[in-house]
Amino acid sequence: MRYSPLLTDLYQLTMLAGYLEEGMAEEPAVFDLFFRHNPFQGGYAVFAGLETALSFLESINFTEDELEYLQGLGMFRPRFIDFLRSFRFRGKVTAAPEGTVVFANEPLVTVEAPLAQAQLVETALLNIINFQTLVATKAARIVNAAAGGTVLEFGLRRAQGPDGGVSEARAAYVGGVKSTSNVLAGKLFGIPVKGTHAHSWIMAFPDELAAFRAYAEVFPDTCILLVDTYDTLKSGIPNAITVARELRAKGYELAGVRIDSGDLAYLSREARRMFDEAGFPSAKIVASNELDEFVIESMRGEGSRVDIYGVGTRLATCAGDGGGALGGVYKLVRIGDRPKLKVTSDIAKATLPDRKRLLRAVSPDGSFVLDVICLHDEVISPGDTVFDPLNPLQSVTIPLNARFEEVRSVVMEGGARTSAHQPSLDDMADRSSEQLSRLPQGCLRFINPHKYKVSISSGLNNLRLRLMDEVQQGYRKLQPGGN
Amino acid sequence: MRYSPLLTDLYQLTMLAGYLEEGMAEEPAVFDLFFRHNPFQGGYAVFAGLETALSFLESINFTEDELEYLQGLGMFRPRFIDFLRSFRFRGKVTAAPEGTVVFANEPLVTVEAPLAQAQLVETALLNIINFQTLVATKAARIVNAAAGGTVLEFGLRRAQGPDGGVSEARAAYVGGVKSTSNVLAGKLFGIPVKGTHAHSWIMAFPDELAAFRAYAEVFPDTCILLVDTYDTLKSGIPNAITVARELRAKGYELAGVRIDSGDLAYLSREARRMFDEAGFPSAKIVASNELDEFVIESMRGEGSRVDIYGVGTRLATCAGDGGGALGGVYKLVRIGDRPKLKVTSDIAKATLPDRKRLLRAVSPDGSFVLDVICLHDEVISPGDTVFDPLNPLQSVTIPLNARFEEVRSVVMEGGARTSAHQPSLDDMADRSSEQLSRLPQGCLRFINPHKYKVSISSGLNNLRLRLMDEVQQGYRKLQPGGN
Repeated sequence: MRYSPLLTDLYQLTMLAGYLEEGMAEEPAVFDLFFRHNPFQGGYAVFAGLETALSFLESINFTEDELEYLQGLGMFRPRFIDFLRSFRFRGKVTAAPEGTVVFANEPLVTVEAPLAQAQLVETALLNIINFQTLVATKAARIVNAAAGGTVLEFGLRRAQGPDGGVSEARAAYVGGVKSTSNVLAGKLFGIPVKGTHAHSWIMAFPDELAAFRAYAEVFPDTCILLVDTYDTLKSGIPNAITVARELRAKGYELAGVRIDSGDLAYLSREARRMFDEAGFPSAKIVASNELDEFVIESMRGEGSRVDIYGVGTRLATCAGDGGGALGGVYKLVRIGDRPKLKVTSDIAKATLPDRKRLLRAVSPDGSFVLDVICLHDEVISPGDTVFDPLNPLQSVTIPLNARFEEVRSVVMEGGARTSAHQPSLDDMADRSSEQLSRLPQGCLRFINPHKYKVSISSGLNNLRLRLMDEVQQGYRKLQPGGN
Repeated sequence: MRYSPLLTDLYQLTMLAGYLEEGMAEEPAVFDLFFRHNPFQGGYAVFAGLETALSFLESINFTEDELEYLQGLGMFRPRFIDFLRSFRFRGKVTAAPEGTVVFANEPLVTVEAPLAQAQLVETALLNIINFQTLVATKAARIVNAAAGGTVLEFGLRRAQGPDGGVSEARAAYVGGVKSTSNVLAGKLFGIPVKGTHAHSWIMAFPDELAAFRAYAEVFPDTCILLVDTYDTLKSGIPNAITVARELRAKGYELAGVRIDSGDLAYLSREARRMFDEAGFPSAKIVASNELDEFVIESMRGEGSRVDIYGVGTRLATCAGDGGGALGGVYKLVRIGDRPKLKVTSDIAKATLPDRKRLLRAVSPDGSFVLDVICLHDEVISPGDTVFDPLNPLQSVTIPLNARFEEVRSVVMEGGARTSAHQPSLDDMADRSSEQLSRLPQGCLRFINPHKYKVSISSGLNNLRLRLMDEVQQGYRKLQPGGN
């Protein structure tokens, strides 16, 4: 699939034109992609979208049609249009594999490329990785709430645009959802597709029983009946039991029923009881209707009897903290031989300068202890003192019995993937579930979770403090009377 | 642009297969697309996405590749795959034009087609229209808050997937936003594109002043400088004033500055004062950073001096009520010669049966009085009694001096657009702003707005009550002992 390189903010192009005029377009630059707060006020994020982003980087190539449009805007010189004509991304990308559990302030993706190349790709990288990481994280939370129950994604109709629904199905699978209703996502990514019928099926027949019988006739071995069109307990379940008996007489078992409205906890318990009493203990109960991790957790708390959760809108749009967006940013951390820092009055918004590594300290039993961000050529050992990135005075010692896992690796070099092998979505889903199980207790909690420690090395801390000081001195020079 | 017909939920295909087996695929069916609650707990919605949806309907055509994928799922018979091979949408579509101000429970789009055709398109129609209508509505609210200030959209990096950002820019323009940062949306839809530079531009230079000077050199006549990289008032504005003086010496005027962090109300007042005192009253102030209608309204309340509002995340993801999704639904209202009704215990979820018209009663001064939904062949006149769709006992009389505007028209017949002329985005934007000005006072309020009256005719009310009664009798037959 080709993404247009025009999928960018205009200011990327005006800046490129400026860098070209200033003779800076080819200066070696390093950018980090990271977010400043874990999404949903939670304890972690599940990184996703990398392979999509790498495909974008590989495909960048302006068509004549696109160049003509830019020319027609009347703001760019012919020399810049020529520059774009031969523009390709030839940079190096270091990143965590998809499905990795990551945290605020960690460099997830680092792009090293000539300034013009590294700059142009910002918008698309953020668009792709912000959204997929957010969805994968939401999916992991919902799967966690389901506590072994199966989660099915069917948010396409409420997703934010056609592709929103497709990216969402992909990322949800990375986060642990087992299947999707989205047929296109099934075809593109090999995700198992699931689905039976809607209320309109029922309404297209003279009555509910006739509708159930017709559906069971066509799909006798995978028949899930939607039982809430008229009245779940008075009409839907009794009719479903009638059909289950008729199916059994023909040698089939009813797969189950779906309940899409009402008090799902209560209705699932009653439905379970009615099916069990009628001799159909294997009929599964699917529940749907504005489900998310909070609703599922509270239903389970009341003893609901749901086997499969269908999750739509609240996964597709990532309802919750942050209004459906991960606040990922992409910041310059080095240009030429100068490490760079963006400072603001808020230290939480100050960036981490220069090329870096991301190490995960792991205890002997395999559980994650803390993450360390250090300079790319710095040696880190157990017993070292590391610092809180939000408070340079706060430090902690890496346990002596810890070993390190390197979280990221080089995934693209010279604009081409470094490995012919692209990881499968199943690999990614396995990674996310395995890593979530290694987090300290409490990190998975939905509200007020345990805060996993992300620290910076002494080398990085010192570099940052020195650069902050230089900036402060710059102000003083500018306005000697200021305070 | 081709949309894949696989952009659908699997259950649409299983239902189609079922209808084909049951000999029902060709039964004439009528579906309505509507939403049950105005988005953002507001007083209205701005309808958008229709032309995108019609393009989808016109392009439906399964490729051999897609058919092979479906075959490979192992759940469909060869006869069904053959049916899909020749599948096209040949139906009739009645809809409001984009930019129309609409309300909960109104049929926005009605699809009349053989059951299989009308059913298959549900997911894509909802996906497209739910999202674009939500964005157009959010945009209209933000534009309303800006009260004459210009609103610029730049949400692409936080949009939900690449196409999410493109659809969003389109719909935001329908809702009244004047330009976008999204270059691809600019090319596809002719929306004006805007943008200057990012913090990374500043950081790529030895200092802020050097960065400003370089940018002003390349774009002397459209130069907007981002002033908050280090410190807006101590560094950014003084440096911008220096550059403004240098530009003036060369015969140019600085276009303005952008403030992207901090207390925007305070900083905009101070920046205005500093520019005015330095002799640059025409330099514009652009503000951005998590803006939405509430933030803008409250900034204006404090006397902020912002000329242009840059709105990103909170527009792109439609933050606010409903978690970024319009709860649009698509319901069967007639099949064959039988009007259809979905009833539930909640009357607010009961549908409005049969083919209908949507009329807007307008007072002599042009303002909107109330909307009436009636049966398609019913005659409605001023003085008629009409009913609250949520409460059949509540009625109101249409004022005698009202005239009616027909809100919808036939936009597609036999699967082809009825008019060669496709309305321009500017037409749509004009319509939304014109119609919003005709709403009763208070409907535009963001919180607890005046509720515009949407009523149903006596013919529709009676049909609905009769069908509800039939369903109730059906229950009683099923379970004589139930209550």
